[in-house]
Amino acid sequence: MTATLPVSSCPVFSAADAHVDCAAVQPLPNSRRIYVTGSRPDIRVPMREIRQDDTPASFGGGANPPVFVYDCSGPYADLDAAIDIRSGLPKLRETWIAEREDTETLPAPSSAYGRGRLADAQLAALRFPFSAPSRRPRRALPGRAVTQMHYARQGIITPEMEFVALRENMNRQVYLQSLLDSGPDGKKLAARLTRQHSGQAFGADIPPDITPEFVRAEIARGRAVLPANINHPESEPMIIGRNFLTKINANIGNSALSSSIAEEVDKMTWAIRWGGDTVMDLSTGKHIHETREWIIRNSPVPIGTVPIYQALEKVDGKAEELDWEIFRDTLIEQAEQGVDYFTIHAGVLLRHIPLTARRMTGIVSRGGSIMAKWCLAHQAENFLYTHFADICAILRAYDAAFSLGDGLRPGSIYDANDEAQMAELKTLGELTEIAWQNDAQTIVEGPGHVPMQRIRENMTTQLAVCKEAPFYTLGPLITDISPGYDHIASGIGAAMIGWYGTAMLCYVTPKEHLGLPDKNDVKEGILIYKIAAHAADLAKGHPGAQIRDNALSKARYEFRWEDQFNLGLDPDRARAFHDATLPLDAAKAAHFCSMCGPRFCAMKITQEIRARRDTPD
Amino acid sequence: MTATLPVSSCPVFSAADAHVDCAAVQPLPNSRRIYVTGSRPDIRVPMREIRQDDTPASFGGGANPPVFVYDCSGPYADLDAAIDIRSGLPKLRETWIAEREDTETLPAPSSAYGRGRLADAQLAALRFPFSAPSRRPRRALPGRAVTQMHYARQGIITPEMEFVALRENMNRQVYLQSLLDSGPDGKKLAARLTRQHSGQAFGADIPPDITPEFVRAEIARGRAVLPANINHPESEPMIIGRNFLTKINANIGNSALSSSIAEEVDKMTWAIRWGGDTVMDLSTGKHIHETREWIIRNSPVPIGTVPIYQALEKVDGKAEELDWEIFRDTLIEQAEQGVDYFTIHAGVLLRHIPLTARRMTGIVSRGGSIMAKWCLAHQAENFLYTHFADICAILRAYDAAFSLGDGLRPGSIYDANDEAQMAELKTLGELTEIAWQNDAQTIVEGPGHVPMQRIRENMTTQLAVCKEAPFYTLGPLITDISPGYDHIASGIGAAMIGWYGTAMLCYVTPKEHLGLPDKNDVKEGILIYKIAAHAADLAKGHPGAQIRDNALSKARYEFRWEDQFNLGLDPDRARAFHDATLPLDAAKAAHFCSMCGPRFCAMKITQEIRARRDTPD
Repeated sequence: MTATLPVSSCPVFSAADAHVDCAAVQPLPNSRRIYVTGSRPDIRVPMREIRQDDTPASFGGGANPPVFVYDCSGPYADLDAAIDIRSGLPKLRETWIAEREDTETLPAPSSAYGRGRLADAQLAALRFPFSAPSRRPRRALPGRAVTQMHYARQGIITPEMEFVALRENMNRQVYLQSLLDSGPDGKKLAARLTRQHSGQAFGADIPPDITPEFVRAEIARGRAVLPANINHPESEPMIIGRNFLTKINANIGNSALSSSIAEEVDKMTWAIRWGGDTVMDLSTGKHIHETREWIIRNSPVPIGTVPIYQALEKVDGKAEELDWEIFRDTLIEQAEQGVDYFTIHAGVLLRHIPLTARRMTGIVSRGGSIMAKWCLAHQAENFLYTHFADICAILRAYDAAFSLGDGLRPGSIYDANDEAQMAELKTLGELTEIAWQNDAQTIVEGPGHVPMQRIRENMTTQLAVCKEAPFYTLGPLITDISPGYDHIASGIGAAMIGWYGTAMLCYVTPKEHLGLPDKNDVKEGILIYKIAAHAADLAKGHPGAQIRDNALSKARYEFRWEDQFNLGLDPDRARAFHDATLPLDAAKAAHFCSMCGPRFCAMKITQEIRARRDTPD
Repeated sequence: MTATLPVSSCPVFSAADAHVDCAAVQPLPNSRRIYVTGSRPDIRVPMREIRQDDTPASFGGGANPPVFVYDCSGPYADLDAAIDIRSGLPKLRETWIAEREDTETLPAPSSAYGRGRLADAQLAALRFPFSAPSRRPRRALPGRAVTQMHYARQGIITPEMEFVALRENMNRQVYLQSLLDSGPDGKKLAARLTRQHSGQAFGADIPPDITPEFVRAEIARGRAVLPANINHPESEPMIIGRNFLTKINANIGNSALSSSIAEEVDKMTWAIRWGGDTVMDLSTGKHIHETREWIIRNSPVPIGTVPIYQALEKVDGKAEELDWEIFRDTLIEQAEQGVDYFTIHAGVLLRHIPLTARRMTGIVSRGGSIMAKWCLAHQAENFLYTHFADICAILRAYDAAFSLGDGLRPGSIYDANDEAQMAELKTLGELTEIAWQNDAQTIVEGPGHVPMQRIRENMTTQLAVCKEAPFYTLGPLITDISPGYDHIASGIGAAMIGWYGTAMLCYVTPKEHLGLPDKNDVKEGILIYKIAAHAADLAKGHPGAQIRDNALSKARYEFRWEDQFNLGLDPDRARAFHDATLPLDAAKAAHFCSMCGPRFCAMKITQEIRARRDTPD
C-alpha cells in the first residue's frame, strides 16, 4: 500500500556553478576567527574571538576583554580565507599525515564502486572537480595501523592531539590574563568572571587544563576518540570523550524524495556555522557517492556515515541481497573518500531480533532494521558481526572510527531500556574490546526514546559494559507526544545524558518523525543541542565553562545589549527579537526593554539601589 | 540615559467591537470537548476526547478507542458553547459559592480605586460591559474564612474538590474499559496500552486514583492549592500540588511600550488552547484594571497577578511613595475582580538586601527590586512582611491564594543558589506557616537561573523549609548564553525540577530577556512547558501518564499519520511539517515519510519482518 508520491523538484546541480552559501561565510557580529599557534607553525588552532563594548560609565566604566569560544565553522567565517567549494578546503593535516611515513597514496580508488563512478562520464557534470584521480586516496602501508589510538598507545603525541588540547582550553589563559591586566581591580574582576559552580561529574575526570599528554592518554585508553581519516586532511582535529567538552553532531543527507547536492553542502556549512562538531551524511537518495565527496572536501569537521545505506542502494533496496563483499567495497569506497566515522550495526544479532517482538514500535533504526531483515532472510548471523575483524582491519588502515550503531534502540517510551536494547548494548561492549585490540577508535551509539527517570541507567550501563568508550546518543526523547517539537523533547534528554557523561549528542530537528529537515531545521536542531551540550559542561564543572555565561550576564546587567546578543549562541535571532518591539538603534543603549518598560525594569532599579550604596566589586 | 522610544501603535480598543480570537475557538482536529458528570449534575468536568482511526488491516485491524486528555481551554473549543467575550463565560461555580452561605455580595467595590474606575466616564468605551456594578463583588461574611483550605480542614469536600479529582483522573477508567471491550484480545491490548515505566518520585506520594477525599486531604495539609477566588466563578477548578499532574503557567500582560486589551485577551485564549493551566496577567502598562476585568471574565483558568505592579503605577513609578494603604486598596480591588492568586514579595527583607551586593545581576525580580528600593529608601522593613497578617485576612475573605514571590531569585548562573536566595526562601517558609495558620492557600515561587547540578537542592530545600507547600518555579534556565532560545534553556530545567517535585512550572517564552512576547511566543512557550510537565509526570510515574505516549507510538508504528498528529501536543504544526515535503492526502496513508523515503523506512522494514513471523500481541 505504498502511495505514489511526487519527488520534490530540486534544481539540477552543476559542479561548474557550485557556490558557497553566502549566509555561511559572514563572520558573526563583532566576531573574528583567530588562531592559536602550537609547538610548530602549522598547528594553528581556530577560535572565535567575540569583542565587547566597554562598560558604561554609569556602571563604573572599564574595558571588557574579548571572549574566546570554540569555533566549528572552519575557514568559512575567516575573512582572510578564500572560499571556493569547487576547490575544497586547504589540506590542514596533509603534512602531518605524510610525515608519519606509514601511508601510501594509491594510483586509483581501491573500491570497484569508486572506480566505476569515476569512469562514468554521465556523472562528470556533478562530480567534485578534484575528486580522484586528481585526488589520490591514501592508505596505510601493508600491516601498519595509522589510527590516533595506535599512535597514542605508542606514546606518540601527534599534531592532531596537540591541536585538540589547545582547542579544548579555548584560550582561557589569555582571557584570564587580559582581565588581570585590565586595571587596579583586575584581580577581583578576574576572580569574578572566571568563577563557576562546583560540578557534579558522575565519575568523569576532567583536568584543570587539557594537555597534549592528557589527550594522548585518553585516546590510548579508548576513553576518547579523535576522528581523523587520513583521506580527510581538510578536517580540523576535534575530540570526543567525556573528559572533554560535550560535542554535538548534526545529521544531514538527502532521501529518495527530497534534496540535492547543493542543498546538502549548504546544510553542512550552515550546521558548522552554528556549532555542529561533526556532521553525519545520511543520504539515501541519488548520487550518494558524489554528494559525499562534495561534503567531505568542503568540511572542516569530521564526517560520519552509515555505509549500509549506500550498500542497500547498490542492491536496489533488497536487504536480503546484501552481502559482505558489497559492504566491504562500500566501506573502502567511503574510507578512501575520507569518512571519519562509520556507524556499523554489528550488534544486531540473530538472537536479539525476537526480543523486539513485543515492542510497541519494533526496530526504528534504519540500519538495524536492514540487518535484522537480512539475518531473518538468511537465518544467519549478521555479517557485520561475523566480519567484525575484517572491518577493524579496514578502519585501522584509514583511521576511520567505529560508531557502533544501536540498531535496536527504542523508538518509543514504551520500548525504553528493554531487553533487546540492553542485549545489543552488551554486544557493543564486546565489540568495543575487539576494536580496541585492533587499535580502531570506537564510539558507541545510544538511544532514542527514554523517560527521564531511566536515562541515567543508560549511561551507567554503557560506561560499565563498554569500558568508558565514548557514548554518542540520539536525544534521548523524554516523551513521544511532541511531534513538531521533538528537537526539544530530545534536547531535554540530551542535556541530562550529557551531564551524566555522554561525550557527543546527536541532534534531532523539529522535523523528526515527520519529514526531511531543511536548512532552517538544521539550525534549530543545532541551537537546541548547543544549549544541551553547554549546560552539560556547566553541570559537570568543566573548567572555564561558565566564562561565557558570566560575561553575558555582566553585559545583561550593564545593559550592553549588543554584547548580550553577540555573546549568545545566536546573535542574529536575539537581535531580531529585540528589534521586534524596539527597532531603533537607541534602544540598544536603553536601560530597559519592552518586556517591562522603563518603569518596571528590575535591572534598572537594582542599579539605582546600588548607586546609593557602596559599589560592590 | 534613558532613550526616548516610540510606543508601539496598538489599534484603539472598543468594548462594543470586542470579539473572540477566531483561531482559539475551533476544536482541535478529531477532537471534541466532553464532560464527565460528578455526584451532582452541575459538576461537569471537561476533557478533550481525541478520536482515532482504525488500525489498518495490514497491521491486524481493530478499533482504537478515543484517548482523553486534560483540557484547559474552557468552553472555547466546545461547539455547543456560545462564545461572546462581551458577556464573559458562564459562572460555573456561582451556585457552589452561594450555597455555602458564608459570603455576601457587596453593593459596590470595596476599594477606592475600583470605585474610581467605575465612576470614570472616559473608561466606558473600553470597560468590560458587565463589570461592577452590574457584577457585584462577593466577600466573606465578617469573620468567616472562605478558602478551600478552610473547608478542607473542616473535613468538607467541596464541589471544586470533587471536580479536580475527576479532572486529574482524565477518564482513564473509561479508556481502559473501552480497550477491554474492544475484542477477544482486549485484555492484552489494555495491558499493553496502559503499561508504563516505574516512576522515581523523590518522595511524592501519588495514589493510583485521585479521590475527592485525597484532594481534600492534600489541600488541608497545605501540599496542594486549589485557586478559586469567589469572584471568579467562571473558573474550572484545577489543583496545584506535587501529587497531582504537573501544571504550567503562562505569563501575559502589556507593558508601557506595547500591546492592547484585545491582544491580551487573545493571548489568554491562545494560552489556554495550548494547555496553560493558569495565566498570570503581568500588565504594567495602561488600563491595567480594565484589561484584567476582560481577562478574568473570559478565563476558565485561574488568573494570577503581581499587585505591586499596579500599586507602583498608582504612585507614578516612585517606589519610595508606595505604602501599605495603596497596596491594601490594590489587593482588595483585584481580589474583588476575581484574581485567584497573588504574587506577594513579602520575603524581601531589609537584612537580605546587602546579600545581593556581590551578585552578577543583582535583583532581577521586578517586585523584588521595587520592594528592595522601598526598604532602602525608608530604611524600614518591607511593609508586605510587616502587614503579612493583614494580607492573610484579605486573602482568606476572597479565597485568593498566596504565591510567595521570590524577589531575590538569581538572574544568572553566577548568582544561583546564593545566600540571598536561600535567606529569602527561609523567610518564605516562615510566611507559609503564617498563611496556613490563617487558612490561606499558599504556593511558593522559585528560580530563575540554575545550572543543572544545582537544581535539585532548590527543590529539596524548598520542600524542607516550606513544609511541602507547592513549589512554582520560573524555568529554571540552565545557562545564560541562549537569548532567543531561553524558552528551551528554561524548559530543560523545568522538566528536571518538575520531576524532582515542582507542582507548577512558569513558562518562559523565546522573547525572554529581549522583549514582550506576542501570541506566537505564548504558544511556543506553552508547548515547551507542556513537554516539560508531561515528561515530569512520566518520570514521577504519575498513574496513566504514559497512555498518550503509548497511543501515539502505536499510531506511529501503524502509519496512522493523522492520529500521530492529533495525539500530539500540536496537531497543526505536526501536520504542517509533514505537508512541507509530502503535501498530498495520499501521503497521510503512506507507509513511510520523506525523512527516509520508502526504501529506508525502518518502521516499514520492521513490519515486513514481523509479517513473516508470528505476529506478537
